[in-house]
Amino acid sequence: MEITFLGTSSGVPTRTRNVSSVALRLPQRKEIWLFDCGEATQHQLLRSDLRTSQIRRIFITHMHGDHIFGLMGLLASCGLAGTVSQIDLYGPPTLDRYIASCLRWSVMRLPYKLQVHTVEPGEVFSDGEFTVTCRLLHHRVPAFGYRVSESDRPGRFHVEKAQALGIPFGPLYGQLKQGKTITLADGRIFDGRDFCDPPQRGRSMVYCTDTVFCESAVELAQQADVLIHEATFSHQEADLAFARLHSTSTMAAQVAAFAQVKLLFLTHFSARYAPGNPVQVEDLLAEAQAIFPNTRLARDFLRYEIPRG
Amino acid sequence: MEITFLGTSSGVPTRTRNVSSVALRLPQRKEIWLFDCGEATQHQLLRSDLRTSQIRRIFITHMHGDHIFGLMGLLASCGLAGTVSQIDLYGPPTLDRYIASCLRWSVMRLPYKLQVHTVEPGEVFSDGEFTVTCRLLHHRVPAFGYRVSESDRPGRFHVEKAQALGIPFGPLYGQLKQGKTITLADGRIFDGRDFCDPPQRGRSMVYCTDTVFCESAVELAQQADVLIHEATFSHQEADLAFARLHSTSTMAAQVAAFAQVKLLFLTHFSARYAPGNPVQVEDLLAEAQAIFPNTRLARDFLRYEIPRG
Ligand SMILES: [Zn+2]
Ligand SMILES: [Zn+2]
Repeated sequence: MEITFLGTSSGVPTRTRNVSSVALRLPQRKEIWLFDCGEATQHQLLRSDLRTSQIRRIFITHMHGDHIFGLMGLLASCGLAGTVSQIDLYGPPTLDRYIASCLRWSVMRLPYKLQVHTVEPGEVFSDGEFTVTCRLLHHRVPAFGYRVSESDRPGRFHVEKAQALGIPFGPLYGQLKQGKTITLADGRIFDGRDFCDPPQRGRSMVYCTDTVFCESAVELAQQADVLIHEATFSHQEADLAFARLHSTSTMAAQVAAFAQVKLLFLTHFSARYAPGNPVQVEDLLAEAQAIFPNTRLARDFLRYEIPRG
Repeated sequence: MEITFLGTSSGVPTRTRNVSSVALRLPQRKEIWLFDCGEATQHQLLRSDLRTSQIRRIFITHMHGDHIFGLMGLLASCGLAGTVSQIDLYGPPTLDRYIASCLRWSVMRLPYKLQVHTVEPGEVFSDGEFTVTCRLLHHRVPAFGYRVSESDRPGRFHVEKAQALGIPFGPLYGQLKQGKTITLADGRIFDGRDFCDPPQRGRSMVYCTDTVFCESAVELAQQADVLIHEATFSHQEADLAFARLHSTSTMAAQVAAFAQVKLLFLTHFSARYAPGNPVQVEDLLAEAQAIFPNTRLARDFLRYEIPRG
């Protein structure tokens, strides 16, 4: 599970930050899942080492333009690439209406299957290896936070140890693998857990934008390895954050602290914090770290591989 | 009248060429008029020396995504800039439906007046100084070519010459300025043309994309100072050009030659001619120059000031 930030600016692109998009690369299945798709996300992909043709699922948080205006161009380019067979798109009610209107008026026919799913709080997707859930955040329009959770993997089974003990091949090995206790014909008893490494904990990533501080973000992010949370404003602009239902750096940090995540990335910065402004994104970082020390700043093209265990 | 190419690729962006957009800067009125608005046009503007806040009119050739998917993001950013009071948008029928749908589903309200005009062949805009006309080209969907024509300016009136000859101040000066012949009380006769420099010819720019070779492009481009014409394919791909109703380099050159324009810019190149391909855009240039020598290649951010006279 490798995260690449493709856009980290709020509202408008700047010279160094594009509008919102995050890519999650799943190398084991050669797939990329996108979270939001602001304008020029396909241009950012061109400049990254990610392959647009690997995009398999796209999760949209809410219908504001800076999170969706790159969708149509990306979907069109996936069609011209010629190697895409299906894309599943998840998002709020009306996402399907937006897509249908754009396809119609731009006279576009996609040469692959595009499946648009309207999400509701709860499970959005699950295939045994990954589960995606979402919660309703608190913004001016319905906005969903997403959590991708990898399933736990059973620990490695030490077959050579079972063999050395003379345990006969067959269904008993399967029971040991599952951690069960077995009794041999000769009366010996073995505990499967003695033959297996401890299970590998599945990794998890949570993406919360756009929202003011809310309990549902805390619930969604419980114990996550990585929380990506919007931090449009600095702490001193809390009034603006409450008025526009965006978060300050400190609200993001509070979510991370309450949820006991391992690592927090701040993103979706107001364009006002561009170089030259008295307040900089580094100040937002310091504000957040005072509450949640393991905080980092997202920037365009930053990659982060979520470590196992 | 200064042209800046903001996107010169057909269909999809490449690492060096964005999808279609051309800016026409009119410094005397501090206005920018855009022709087409592919995705990330606002990003290209950010990287140019043009000010997004000066955009006053946008002319759309046709409804294919690579010519319109940058519109919504640009219109949104013009709103956030806070200094725009009106934008007039011109294009094919259904452009208004596309805009209305996108505004609706992205819950966007623009803080300025957006006027959408459906164009028909003929005059699209005129204000005394500039006239914009359009013609229907020949593409898979209705596509319009546009011509911007500057009005001729009367030559400078040499007031000092009239004074030296003792012509009395007053309405007679106005008649001389207009090139009329006057008779003084003392019987002397003067021809106004002797007091005026020859009129300055207005400049003109024509933009033709997407289209296969067509007579209406030739008619629209008659005697233009600059013709910007699509050249999606090289001459050897003429079959593809006819099948997809795009132009080859040589078709563009033929339009320029028949219309007797002063200068031809080729643009809207297929992404296949990217560095590394055996055929390059320079080959398209050579093919066109064999027919119309004063041909140049457009590239992103290339500026061209149309000279007077
Ligand atoms: Zn946003
Ligand atoms: Zn095109």
